[in-house]
Amino acid sequence: MPTDPTDLSPLSYGSSGVDYNVIDPFKVAAQRAAASTGSHLDGHGFSEVESSRGESAYVVDVGPFYLASIVECLGSKAMVADSMQALTGKSFFAAIAQDTIAMAVNDLITVGATPLVVQAYWAAGGSEWFADAGRRQALIEGWKRACDLCKVSWGGGETPALAGIVEAGRIDLAASCTGIVSPKDRLSLGAHLGPGDAIVLLASSGIHANGVSLARDLAARLPQGYLTPLTASAVPIGFGEALLEPTVLYSPITEALFKAGVRPHYAANITGHGWRKLMRHRSAFTYRIHAVPDVPPVLKFIQAEALLSDRDAYGTFNMGAGFALFVAAEDAAQTVAVAHKAGLDAWIAGTVEAGPKRLVIESLGLEYDGSDLGLRA
Amino acid sequence: MPTDPTDLSPLSYGSSGVDYNVIDPFKVAAQRAAASTGSHLDGHGFSEVESSRGESAYVVDVGPFYLASIVECLGSKAMVADSMQALTGKSFFAAIAQDTIAMAVNDLITVGATPLVVQAYWAAGGSEWFADAGRRQALIEGWKRACDLCKVSWGGGETPALAGIVEAGRIDLAASCTGIVSPKDRLSLGAHLGPGDAIVLLASSGIHANGVSLARDLAARLPQGYLTPLTASAVPIGFGEALLEPTVLYSPITEALFKAGVRPHYAANITGHGWRKLMRHRSAFTYRIHAVPDVPPVLKFIQAEALLSDRDAYGTFNMGAGFALFVAAEDAAQTVAVAHKAGLDAWIAGTVEAGPKRLVIESLGLEYDGSDLGLRA
Repeated sequence: MPTDPTDLSPLSYGSSGVDYNVIDPFKVAAQRAAASTGSHLDGHGFSEVESSRGESAYVVDVGPFYLASIVECLGSKAMVADSMQALTGKSFFAAIAQDTIAMAVNDLITVGATPLVVQAYWAAGGSEWFADAGRRQALIEGWKRACDLCKVSWGGGETPALAGIVEAGRIDLAASCTGIVSPKDRLSLGAHLGPGDAIVLLASSGIHANGVSLARDLAARLPQGYLTPLTASAVPIGFGEALLEPTVLYSPITEALFKAGVRPHYAANITGHGWRKLMRHRSAFTYRIHAVPDVPPVLKFIQAEALLSDRDAYGTFNMGAGFALFVAAEDAAQTVAVAHKAGLDAWIAGTVEAGPKRLVIESLGLEYDGSDLGLRA
Repeated sequence: MPTDPTDLSPLSYGSSGVDYNVIDPFKVAAQRAAASTGSHLDGHGFSEVESSRGESAYVVDVGPFYLASIVECLGSKAMVADSMQALTGKSFFAAIAQDTIAMAVNDLITVGATPLVVQAYWAAGGSEWFADAGRRQALIEGWKRACDLCKVSWGGGETPALAGIVEAGRIDLAASCTGIVSPKDRLSLGAHLGPGDAIVLLASSGIHANGVSLARDLAARLPQGYLTPLTASAVPIGFGEALLEPTVLYSPITEALFKAGVRPHYAANITGHGWRKLMRHRSAFTYRIHAVPDVPPVLKFIQAEALLSDRDAYGTFNMGAGFALFVAAEDAAQTVAVAHKAGLDAWIAGTVEAGPKRLVIESLGLEYDGSDLGLRA
């Protein structure tokens, strides 16, 4: 929708055109139909891991190990890169490529899988998208670099030109990822999640790729748009460039944790629905957060300029924490140490408690309950 | 592009906005970068099957069996369903769902894989796409039914609302598929393909999902558009409805062949580039076709109305043959018998010969050479 630069009302996800109230019930209907197909695997001598239904990746027991697979969409972040290319002449598609792979890889690893193969889905609005040499080269190089960082093989993919479906000049980016859970006791679907577990949060690099529609609406009502300087940032950087900081790839951390002997009980990729994703597991637990990380300047800026309450901000954005690991209390310090050793900030942020499904962020006086996250069939 | 209903010049893929001359070299550059990432699998104790690079599915050796994965796009066929819904009030998205799954499954099985898991990628132009109950229900039901036909588990998927990237009212449909090749000697990457092998063609149901942009351009210049009756059809049917006959799912045939003891040396899914796909394998062979199947009425109609030469028609459409199996000569008759038993027409259509990469369709006096198919790095 067009936004009025003089409109100072708060922005929200409903006003940004993504209405989870319409999409979530549809997702639930699709999940129910999908669940009815799982028994087909029996005919092939395998079986699904039923508790992976509704989790971030689907898991199949193929005997010596589990197979995990997923397809994930980037969302609208490529539009920010398009705008920034128009403003600066520079292609940001290397960062966008990493964001796309992160959407898939960071979901796949939540079940305990080692990502092995990524497939590219690059659907352009027309053949001419691929005629811009700098842009297409950035996309290819960024994609390869992200695969190198995650130690996954880029298996191939699909690069259709979809005039009439994808808008002219735009590209719809997605990635599929296949991996294995091996040994099988790496499976982290939450069977061992329970009261007393520690919640370790891993740092985000900025907005990642969720909440971007709202950020685009905000840019539309700022007089300097994407070129607005971020006041809270230590180094001078514009809003658009800060948005395009690539998403952290968390699989090097989960692989290092495995090598260090830490087996997370559960993991949540903090994407759409922001911190509400901490309540992702099907069981009813209360997640109590004692300490929140520093908020990246770009998210601080968005919250201030879009006039978002803490409740809306933490319910929409990652607010500095891109990934959550739920580990045995005695593993919490080592989990943080492994992340630090890999160069990523991490914090023991809270604990899992018996109680109704609820997220309590103490220092902010915030509370969300299970009904705030309608993901399940 | 807008088409002029009075323009009677032949239609072609270039004029339909899909320019393979731009896309194919880009694909080749991406394939080169992708190939450089295959060695990451070694660090996980696995290895890629290098000869699967550039084939229809990517194959990894995970020890007891091979893992195959793929992501595939439907293309523009959903736009035909959109037009037909506007004209008839009926949703054709159940058929479209099957088409989408067929694009992935029919590619995956070419390497000898049993498809196990399909993931849905349904990227809509906005949340409102999902508000049409009949349409979304057809999509879900058709997707489930196609999974049932292929005996695959629908693992989950992604249903983003991508306003600004996907056009309002449209949907970008794709599917990822993961399977295994087991036992490992089912692998059909063409190592055993050679002179004397028989080419068995399996019947298509119509246009499937390739060549649809051209069909849409044709509809735009027909006075009755999608409601034009197909004169060559035995039963009265309109052009649009005939286009929306769902794609044949070939995995029940390849699974039945395995059970019957037939191991194809190679397989080709006849999609974009039409019969030129028969030259898909990297080796130089001459593929000589002695007999062509009957052409489905909808493809006969397109060829006649779009004024296509046989060369253009067979180089673009499946012309009645949706899938090719390259089998040992002594397995050819049984291959046909297995297909017939499964209810699908099939023909021993030709032979593989030593010679330069070339496709010769004798009865039509057609010849294509390897340079007519620029898919490889």
